[in-house]
Amino acid sequence: MATYKAPVDDALFLLHEVFHLDRYGNLPGFGDATPDVVEAVLREAGKFSEEVLTPLNRLGDEEGCTRHPDGSVTTPKGFKEALKQMVEGGWIGISVPPEFGGQGLPTTLTQLVNEFLCSANLSFAMYPGLTQGAIAALLVHGSPEIKAKYLPKMVEGVWTGTMNLTESHCGTDLGLLRTKAVKQPNGSYKITGTKIFISAGEHDMSENIIHLVLARIEGAPAGIKGISLFVVPKILVKDDGSLGARNGVTCGSIEEKMGIHGNSTCVMNYDGASGWLIGEENRGLNAMFVMMNEARLGVGVQGLALSEVAYQNAATYAKERVQGRALSGAKYPNQPADPIIVHPDVRRTLLIIRAFNEAARALVMWTALRTDVSHRSGDAKERQSADDHMGLLTPVIKGVLTEQGFANAVQAQQMFGGHGYIAEHGMEQFVRDARIAMIYEGANGIQALDLVGRKLGKDGGRALMAFLNEIGDFIKEKNADASIKPFVTPLGVALGHLQQASMWFMQNAMAKPDNAGAGATDYLQMFGLVALGYMWCLIAQAALAKQTDARMKAKLITARFFMERMLPETAAQLARIKSGADAVMELPDEAF
Amino acid sequence: MATYKAPVDDALFLLHEVFHLDRYGNLPGFGDATPDVVEAVLREAGKFSEEVLTPLNRLGDEEGCTRHPDGSVTTPKGFKEALKQMVEGGWIGISVPPEFGGQGLPTTLTQLVNEFLCSANLSFAMYPGLTQGAIAALLVHGSPEIKAKYLPKMVEGVWTGTMNLTESHCGTDLGLLRTKAVKQPNGSYKITGTKIFISAGEHDMSENIIHLVLARIEGAPAGIKGISLFVVPKILVKDDGSLGARNGVTCGSIEEKMGIHGNSTCVMNYDGASGWLIGEENRGLNAMFVMMNEARLGVGVQGLALSEVAYQNAATYAKERVQGRALSGAKYPNQPADPIIVHPDVRRTLLIIRAFNEAARALVMWTALRTDVSHRSGDAKERQSADDHMGLLTPVIKGVLTEQGFANAVQAQQMFGGHGYIAEHGMEQFVRDARIAMIYEGANGIQALDLVGRKLGKDGGRALMAFLNEIGDFIKEKNADASIKPFVTPLGVALGHLQQASMWFMQNAMAKPDNAGAGATDYLQMFGLVALGYMWCLIAQAALAKQTDARMKAKLITARFFMERMLPETAAQLARIKSGADAVMELPDEAF
Repeated sequence: MATYKAPVDDALFLLHEVFHLDRYGNLPGFGDATPDVVEAVLREAGKFSEEVLTPLNRLGDEEGCTRHPDGSVTTPKGFKEALKQMVEGGWIGISVPPEFGGQGLPTTLTQLVNEFLCSANLSFAMYPGLTQGAIAALLVHGSPEIKAKYLPKMVEGVWTGTMNLTESHCGTDLGLLRTKAVKQPNGSYKITGTKIFISAGEHDMSENIIHLVLARIEGAPAGIKGISLFVVPKILVKDDGSLGARNGVTCGSIEEKMGIHGNSTCVMNYDGASGWLIGEENRGLNAMFVMMNEARLGVGVQGLALSEVAYQNAATYAKERVQGRALSGAKYPNQPADPIIVHPDVRRTLLIIRAFNEAARALVMWTALRTDVSHRSGDAKERQSADDHMGLLTPVIKGVLTEQGFANAVQAQQMFGGHGYIAEHGMEQFVRDARIAMIYEGANGIQALDLVGRKLGKDGGRALMAFLNEIGDFIKEKNADASIKPFVTPLGVALGHLQQASMWFMQNAMAKPDNAGAGATDYLQMFGLVALGYMWCLIAQAALAKQTDARMKAKLITARFFMERMLPETAAQLARIKSGADAVMELPDEAF
Repeated sequence: MATYKAPVDDALFLLHEVFHLDRYGNLPGFGDATPDVVEAVLREAGKFSEEVLTPLNRLGDEEGCTRHPDGSVTTPKGFKEALKQMVEGGWIGISVPPEFGGQGLPTTLTQLVNEFLCSANLSFAMYPGLTQGAIAALLVHGSPEIKAKYLPKMVEGVWTGTMNLTESHCGTDLGLLRTKAVKQPNGSYKITGTKIFISAGEHDMSENIIHLVLARIEGAPAGIKGISLFVVPKILVKDDGSLGARNGVTCGSIEEKMGIHGNSTCVMNYDGASGWLIGEENRGLNAMFVMMNEARLGVGVQGLALSEVAYQNAATYAKERVQGRALSGAKYPNQPADPIIVHPDVRRTLLIIRAFNEAARALVMWTALRTDVSHRSGDAKERQSADDHMGLLTPVIKGVLTEQGFANAVQAQQMFGGHGYIAEHGMEQFVRDARIAMIYEGANGIQALDLVGRKLGKDGGRALMAFLNEIGDFIKEKNADASIKPFVTPLGVALGHLQQASMWFMQNAMAKPDNAGAGATDYLQMFGLVALGYMWCLIAQAALAKQTDARMKAKLITARFFMERMLPETAAQLARIKSGADAVMELPDEAF
């Protein structure tokens, strides 16, 4: 059975010593986030994840969700009670404004808590996670009436939320969607159509389910400019807030899938269901995109979360499993064999995962703090710069953290040999569960295109310039410091590669966009390596100040490993990008 | 539902135009392998794989194997009948000497046929595959009596075989194994112990199951020098060849695992079961290792097989799924959207898989032909050189083809977006099934250590030198030829990296073996890239001769893609190898 220990100490180290949370005291809500409060929140969330959610993870995978003939869905044993505990603790709304029942604490804290929840039980964490996403959309775009009607119960957690975008013939290209909305005399709409892959679409954990649905209003323009966003409750809500009749939306079936079996992935049938417009007519995609950054950041966190729990279990196993002897002679001569942690290849594998996890956590935190600035700062320039950062880093975090998170889960499983392939140790579940994060909220190829095709050139490259300058300035500033130079020098090389690749796109992709498409994935991964490398430099800087601490010494060793073994990949990525689109585009379509 | 088309034409192209099968006519059995016979065998095997095995693949995954209270195991519907068809066609023994009922055809042909079987249905293919492995061991090490008693029925396929190595506390380190053998007055042994992860250990597809079991004879030395190999039939075989009483071996349970659900993976309990010694006492590991090369080559083929079938389905989907428009404007303006094959990133992904598959098939063939030379040549020098090649390339093929085969299955699944995550299209099954090949027959980390720790330095580096010289000579010879130069030049660069890495090990790993261990996996992968690059040059050479053929033109485009986008990774691998063991070994064990 897999185990989990929430990395609370690492999160606190990053918050206070790397990112200096106290410097954000001027933002609303940050004043309440005193070191004591932050630590209490994280320790409580860690405990809940370890003690309540972890034991339910494998059970949920085995039992899965069951749809009954009447369309109702039963979730795995224990899930309902676990959500009740979350509701009682007020966890869903820790970062929601107090006027809607939240605690107003930094979003950064929510992302950290979500990492713990997802490590412990991704299938479960998706129920409150999607609710938070729906809350975010309603907060930005809902009318005052709609906010008042739906938000308090959702923030409390007694109602959950969903996102309904995908139809069987369209996922990436939402312009093709067919679900219809017909305006009614009372101002509401009748929604008709079928949505697929709807996570948490139907279940038995909450009193109501609030669906956010993309649909096309009768007579709207074709393509993405004719799509609107609606709120469609499973059970209609009366004006006094009490529940009324059942709405015309039902779960038609649940998908049989590779993993996240504890989450009910539904085909949702809308049959003249009553819905209410969110935001403006035909501006539904814009409404969705505002919240997309945060949702994508959250999926990136899932990649990190699975990588972290997989690492913990693999490291424990490597220290316990005795098999063979160290290459340089027995290290544990009193045992019949050495634990496999003595082998360089086992350590190399574990260090790749660890070096990723610790920097990825920092990257999430860095970006989550910018989210808070973007939402809460009173300074327009600060908000703009934070928005730029989020827009630029979101596809990177989603694409890189989920891609590497999955690869890490696979390598952690590998440490178990044959024992990793059987269900007993839980490692194969981490792999199956981690796999989805590369796909949903925009498959990673789409993230790469978003970065290269939309984010790089936006506002004359302002966001990219700010990113490159921040790191460039840091390198210049630190270059004279001998203690940090071993970390900063390789970062400088990698940054140079990123600059060259960006320049190459500018020179070669205007006239021939395929040159951007062919290099997009390598560019995304390279961008991620540079960002993680920068995180390692910031971490090293904090760790160098306390080298007597064993944990800080371990940080410095891991940072060195990252610089020597992981960051140099940027050279190969640059070579691939510069090879351009010719060899990629030459083969006729039908020859594939 | 996934589909499959056996790549018979590609196999024939490689056999005749790249590897010139006719040049091997002097080897026994190759005279019978006329072009007509070879084509008939491959087309028949292809048809059987496509029509009989492919439809059973998903059904087998869903139904799995069931163990009954009496220890018997039922395999998925249709498996038994499919094996019967294989038996009727004489497929199991196509490369076995005619004296034991086989057809004596080249082993190369068996490997090609196995690729088709594994693409269509890996779970099924393991039953005859393990039987072939057991046959190989008995052929080399069995006494004439044992061969006469067991081989004909196994070659026919009415009895199947297994390998029993692993115990719960030991897999890699077989020196720790505890299964006991006690000699009986009649020369047989009583075998007692528990073996785990025994593929095809118990099932309902054959009349008898012939287990090959590693055990320690009472009083034998500790460690690997006290292990012997035994044949232990499920049902005792009388002297007249008829079946007698049930032997003391039963299936205690079957494992719940990530994939290959149609194969029954058993815990086998030996309770004083009668067994007969194979080879010499205490030399059981040597007996196993002789057949290990071929078994590992076979697992490498599994990696290729899953990559091939995953590619085929992803390519078909990419040509059918319409979503969005090409970056450079609509390519299929008559459709509501373009098929996703127009996107550079989709093509890049597919080309990575394709460029791997076609070269990997060549690499398998090149090495399988050496297997045939090693077993059948009358020239001792030729045999030695073929043995050298096999020993050197086996860990490379096992490690690289399974690692990349799995990664390719994951990327092929990615092409389907959310549809790849649900069971319906069969893509997630390919991923789950492909995952095992990285683990069994020696986890890939062990393959890397085998290559670096045992194979490189063996016989003064003779095998490595021969490999480097063959490629080096080829490059020198072709360098003046402008048409092939674009392929040969990058191979020269990669070969240089491999030479530098080999040299670095020689200079740095003698005194400090951890330097070899820390670089082993990168070296294995680099070795694989160079070998695949050489295969692409040989393929390009054959393709350049017929450039008017669309298939040959596609080969040249794919070769170019490989050279530009895949081979340059050797530079990053070299950098990692040269970074040595320091950062890997520095962290104390307990800090992980």
